[in-house]
Amino acid sequence: MGDYEYLLVKHDADTVRITMNRPERRNALSGAHLLELLDAFEKAGRGDATGIVLAAEGKAFSSGHDFADVAARDLAGVRDLLTLCTKVMRTIESVPQVVIARVHALATAAGCQLVASCDLAVAAESAAFALPGGKGGWFCHTPAVPVARNIGRKRLMELAMTGDPIDARTAAEWGLINYAVPDAELDARVDELLARATRGSRFSKGVGKQTLYAQLDRPEADAYDIAVEVMASMSQAAGAKEGMAAFLEKRRAVWPD
Amino acid sequence: MGDYEYLLVKHDADTVRITMNRPERRNALSGAHLLELLDAFEKAGRGDATGIVLAAEGKAFSSGHDFADVAARDLAGVRDLLTLCTKVMRTIESVPQVVIARVHALATAAGCQLVASCDLAVAAESAAFALPGGKGGWFCHTPAVPVARNIGRKRLMELAMTGDPIDARTAAEWGLINYAVPDAELDARVDELLARATRGSRFSKGVGKQTLYAQLDRPEADAYDIAVEVMASMSQAAGAKEGMAAFLEKRRAVWPD
Amino acid sequence: MGDYEYLLVKHDADTVRITMNRPERRNALSGAHLLELLDAFEKAGRGDATGIVLAAEGKAFSSGHDFADVAARDLAGVRDLLTLCTKVMRTIESVPQVVIARVHALATAAGCQLVASCDLAVAAESAAFALPGGKGGWFCHTPAVPVARNIGRKRLMELAMTGDPIDARTAAEWGLINYAVPDAELDARVDELLARATRGSRFSKGVGKQTLYAQLDRPEADAYDIAVEVMASMSQAAGAKEGMAAFLEKRRAVWPD
Repeated sequence: MGDYEYLLVKHDADTVRITMNRPERRNALSGAHLLELLDAFEKAGRGDATGIVLAAEGKAFSSGHDFADVAARDLAGVRDLLTLCTKVMRTIESVPQVVIARVHALATAAGCQLVASCDLAVAAESAAFALPGGKGGWFCHTPAVPVARNIGRKRLMELAMTGDPIDARTAAEWGLINYAVPDAELDARVDELLARATRGSRFSKGVGKQTLYAQLDRPEADAYDIAVEVMASMSQAAGAKEGMAAFLEKRRAVWPD
Repeated sequence: MGDYEYLLVKHDADTVRITMNRPERRNALSGAHLLELLDAFEKAGRGDATGIVLAAEGKAFSSGHDFADVAARDLAGVRDLLTLCTKVMRTIESVPQVVIARVHALATAAGCQLVASCDLAVAAESAAFALPGGKGGWFCHTPAVPVARNIGRKRLMELAMTGDPIDARTAAEWGLINYAVPDAELDARVDELLARATRGSRFSKGVGKQTLYAQLDRPEADAYDIAVEVMASMSQAAGAKEGMAAFLEKRRAVWPD
Repeated sequence: MGDYEYLLVKHDADTVRITMNRPERRNALSGAHLLELLDAFEKAGRGDATGIVLAAEGKAFSSGHDFADVAARDLAGVRDLLTLCTKVMRTIESVPQVVIARVHALATAAGCQLVASCDLAVAAESAAFALPGGKGGWFCHTPAVPVARNIGRKRLMELAMTGDPIDARTAAEWGLINYAVPDAELDARVDELLARATRGSRFSKGVGKQTLYAQLDRPEADAYDIAVEVMASMSQAAGAKEGMAAFLEKRRAVWPD
């Protein structure tokens, strides 16, 4: 872990910290960069961490697709690139760990999509978010997919059709991120939320996260069909049994996995 | 009506008031408690009331599933319990009456799910809401189903993954409840909202509520298919005809049903 | 363009301004009025404008269906009327132009549905919004379809079941409109948002808007299937190519279409 050209990956205690580190290109998501992100998230997903922090170095969080890379591709090549990009976004949702975006600066296009795809997001007040395809060139079709699943329709339309940025406070009001915090407090607030989101049985929470994404965007009856079956099964898992026993015996839980 | 061990049920004028009354167990939803809730909502649903208030006695609104009950069950037993619990939640949505949650205190897990499943909710400012399975034991898979259909995705993830409570004001901002009100005004504000939500033709409004739930969570074209057909049929119902006639004749409506 | 009984249609520069002009009936949406709206939106949709403003004259933006028209119809007649009304709403979503509602006053029932169906909406602070079928006559089944896709479920239920109006500021907080602005600034703010939402390649943005509506309300994986394919194709369009070239060459884009 850690042999990447565009990423810094650190594993401290129970957290994997994946930091995009191509500041001279504003962390643009070329095919090579996306392959590294996919590899890093897949490796972290198979590991025993409880949480993953996605961060970035430099003046931008991420500027989205790398136009130098895109412009050189034909239709099949761009389709491959977008399929890879979608796989990165869906992997963030499918790994059992809680994934938090630590957004210190501007996140645009597929960079904004990364934030929307993370389970949780904390941003510095000086950060901002945009879908700049709305300015009239290559429209942000795929970034709008998870953004649409985080914020209301009129606000989605404003972001997508104007291409203009919103500041972190507006993003928090709209629900695109969890918190906009003073720049100096960014790391502390990310770690505080991460600690709250990762405690307890790792196995129970991993299945919990994965089932949430499985039940979203469906008629409620279909969502219940999924959730009832998973929740019944999970009642027999060691984590659930220990949680209930600890509660009934009025003692602290000792998590088995 | 009223022969329950865990509930108090009062029928005053046009309102059925169902009050969970097992304060010594923080209104935990054992199988027996859920069977009583199901019976009370089904009976109220078949009756001629226009509104139902779901309230609770004691220090908690409801703490969710009763771990003493759950821990004693095998997989099939828990599946039965969750299927029953889901039936209670879906019955709240399917009865023709407007159902308002009157939340005076902490509502957690399936207790929070009850609030999310009611059509409307008013909470005292001192109330709070949580999905405590997020602390790492038995994850709140089924409570997250209606909660996800009331609030945005990042906020759902925070509630579900941290297990920490949010206060009533935050719940109102996020859309989990309609209003957070001073504790002393709770009953007055519940009754005020109930009065506004229940006036008019009982039949028209019952079909209205049921059609709302039928069209949610679907592609818009499918939702329109449902709504057009119901709305055309209902134009011929006595309530609609009287509403239109009263409007055109500039007089007060006299509701036929 | 412009030979309408109930509408004023102006084409200035790149904008088509469709103004409902039947103030003596509070812009009630009779079958004849809806046919004119459909025709005006279809014509504008086929034209070369980049934006459409939907406005109204008189004391109300629109009071929704015209009860004098509805009351005279049998089931088949009302079904035809609602199918026509739905076609107007879906046409607003399907035309390639950005459609902004300019709401200067009360928008109720199908009038509120018009606002919910526009891509963007700016309202004067003195405007208000309601689904008055909730007062107990003919329930607002079809207006609730796009309203439900703009705001949260508890707020939808309050609007739909009470029939009471919300003011423009509340509508903005809930996400039913983009902005509530001082009455005197309404035109300026509509034009400012329109300008931001319509710049750039007309073709790229039209496909962008249409793809947004296609991917909403679906499981995320299905939405990505749609968005990836469209975005790959559109990478080869002249607008995308010029946007990327201009970015890479650090010059202003010259939009080809």
